[in-house]
Amino acid sequence: MTVATDTPTLKMVAAAAGVSKSTVSRVINDSPSVTKEAVAAVSAAIEQLGYTPNRAARTLVSRRTQTLALVIPENTATFFTDPYFASVIQGAATRVSETEFTLALLIAGGSEDKVRRYLRAGSVDGALVLSHHADDRSYSHLAGRLPLVFGGRPMSQEGDLPFYVDVDNVAAAQEATRRLVAAGRRRIATVAGPADMAAGVDRLEGWRRALAEAGQSDDLVERGDFSPASGEAAARRLLERGEPFDGLFAASAQLASGALRVLREHGRQVPHDLGLVTVDDDYFAQGSTPPLTTVRQPTLEVGRRMADVLIDLVMARDVERVTIFPTEIVDRGSA
Amino acid sequence: MTVATDTPTLKMVAAAAGVSKSTVSRVINDSPSVTKEAVAAVSAAIEQLGYTPNRAARTLVSRRTQTLALVIPENTATFFTDPYFASVIQGAATRVSETEFTLALLIAGGSEDKVRRYLRAGSVDGALVLSHHADDRSYSHLAGRLPLVFGGRPMSQEGDLPFYVDVDNVAAAQEATRRLVAAGRRRIATVAGPADMAAGVDRLEGWRRALAEAGQSDDLVERGDFSPASGEAAARRLLERGEPFDGLFAASAQLASGALRVLREHGRQVPHDLGLVTVDDDYFAQGSTPPLTTVRQPTLEVGRRMADVLIDLVMARDVERVTIFPTEIVDRGSA
Repeated sequence: MTVATDTPTLKMVAAAAGVSKSTVSRVINDSPSVTKEAVAAVSAAIEQLGYTPNRAARTLVSRRTQTLALVIPENTATFFTDPYFASVIQGAATRVSETEFTLALLIAGGSEDKVRRYLRAGSVDGALVLSHHADDRSYSHLAGRLPLVFGGRPMSQEGDLPFYVDVDNVAAAQEATRRLVAAGRRRIATVAGPADMAAGVDRLEGWRRALAEAGQSDDLVERGDFSPASGEAAARRLLERGEPFDGLFAASAQLASGALRVLREHGRQVPHDLGLVTVDDDYFAQGSTPPLTTVRQPTLEVGRRMADVLIDLVMARDVERVTIFPTEIVDRGSA
Repeated sequence: MTVATDTPTLKMVAAAAGVSKSTVSRVINDSPSVTKEAVAAVSAAIEQLGYTPNRAARTLVSRRTQTLALVIPENTATFFTDPYFASVIQGAATRVSETEFTLALLIAGGSEDKVRRYLRAGSVDGALVLSHHADDRSYSHLAGRLPLVFGGRPMSQEGDLPFYVDVDNVAAAQEATRRLVAAGRRRIATVAGPADMAAGVDRLEGWRRALAEAGQSDDLVERGDFSPASGEAAARRLLERGEPFDGLFAASAQLASGALRVLREHGRQVPHDLGLVTVDDDYFAQGSTPPLTTVRQPTLEVGRRMADVLIDLVMARDVERVTIFPTEIVDRGSA
């Protein structure tokens, strides 16, 4: 065999390994019908020649796992009932399916220790962490151990600024609340999200800014955890205060759906008696009676971009640390 | 150090490795705050002494990944819209959460090659394959490479009888169809599932048996793929035949929901003009108008048992190859 001066080819690998070209292909594609000896010979030849025909071959050389994790810090029931996950995951999965990587979903609620151990153990080349609904502090410190991209700004940051993809939640909430002001609402309450989550904090801030612009007071605040049940409970607490209000900003459509049930129980009609606006254009917003004025997040694009950034990180390519997608108001007359 | 005659202890490992007991604990628990040297020394001491304090330590010795895969041979959209998956996965995830194993979900639709490569690459200790909605032939041949448990009987069997958990689909369909016969229906059609899936084949067989018992003919068959859209199309084809029928068995509640839309379009009321029964007690059966007489599968228990069997296989314990759960008819007067 002569020394290769050109880009090495499959044929050259076959010659160096003393096997047929189809055997090289089978090794590269991890076919079950190939002997250990052939795998060893072909791997050695690939390494010697620096042959990199595709991702699979590179794996043999680099020991990359070709696996990306998508961590959802929620329990299984929440995972399947919150439409946000379905959409972001679909975006990420579609992007990953275009590559040689495999996407492994980890529903981490209650098993955070095990999942962190899994991530640290070299099981994957990198991880997406969907932090929309939970404190993700426990994952942030892994950023030094493997490439990590968050969906939603992580609340706590250790070390370097994390890689994340998000929307402008302050602007989204501000825009939605402005619809209530524009509809003539003079006393506007909010069912806010949790205080330990960026989406909860930022949407509350957006609500405050819209009220400040309008010269209205911002003391009618009750919190939930983004679930419909917590929206019910928060709306009950708002009503129990005994302070009348004619507008409500619910920080997610699930919160809004719970609040709407309680308002209806108390004979308060939307939008006749009070205006109700929210964030997320999912079936909770679209399917409620009446359908709700809301803010659409580009969830598919968020998922897709998260996968894009992670793949670039794993491949050691340059990439933006932070991507913020614009949101879009959807008017349905419920303000 | 003296030679250990009793069961080795954490203290003995610490002494052999020349580190503190807390360092041994940190290594065992894969703590980030431990040096590579300490990991090497502790791992060597554990191996030398045969110390197996818990699963984490055994992993260090056995090279077990402590990870189980759950493979769904479907695309992401189907995964999130078919309630069968949510329920079986919740059952499996709950069981796995009680152990030291981590469950990695792989939505394999369109990426079967990559997923098989992942499974073969030693990334996991075993895999659950939910074959309810797809041809799983491509996974069966992996059974010789790693412990594999199917949800639903695999259609093709290579080598040994596979491990699987299922319900008696023949009995389920037969029982449902008997409700139509008992309601006085004399010409009973079916929207069947796919011919390349056990649930499709078996439920068609159950329908045939119930009609044979009743001395009725079984020629009114159209097929779908278990989705609502395919149920619509199949119902249209049934109506286009021009043969009147007064009973319909749809092989899944999703198929039934699609068929019901088409029947309504054609002015045919359930149960006034014809009876409609199905399988699966999910929101498609419960939330349709009218709610449907159906057969409940114990989907949570199926998922839980699948995980049970797989864990036993991975731990090299004795386990039954096949578990068949009973089903239960739910009468809602739609027959």
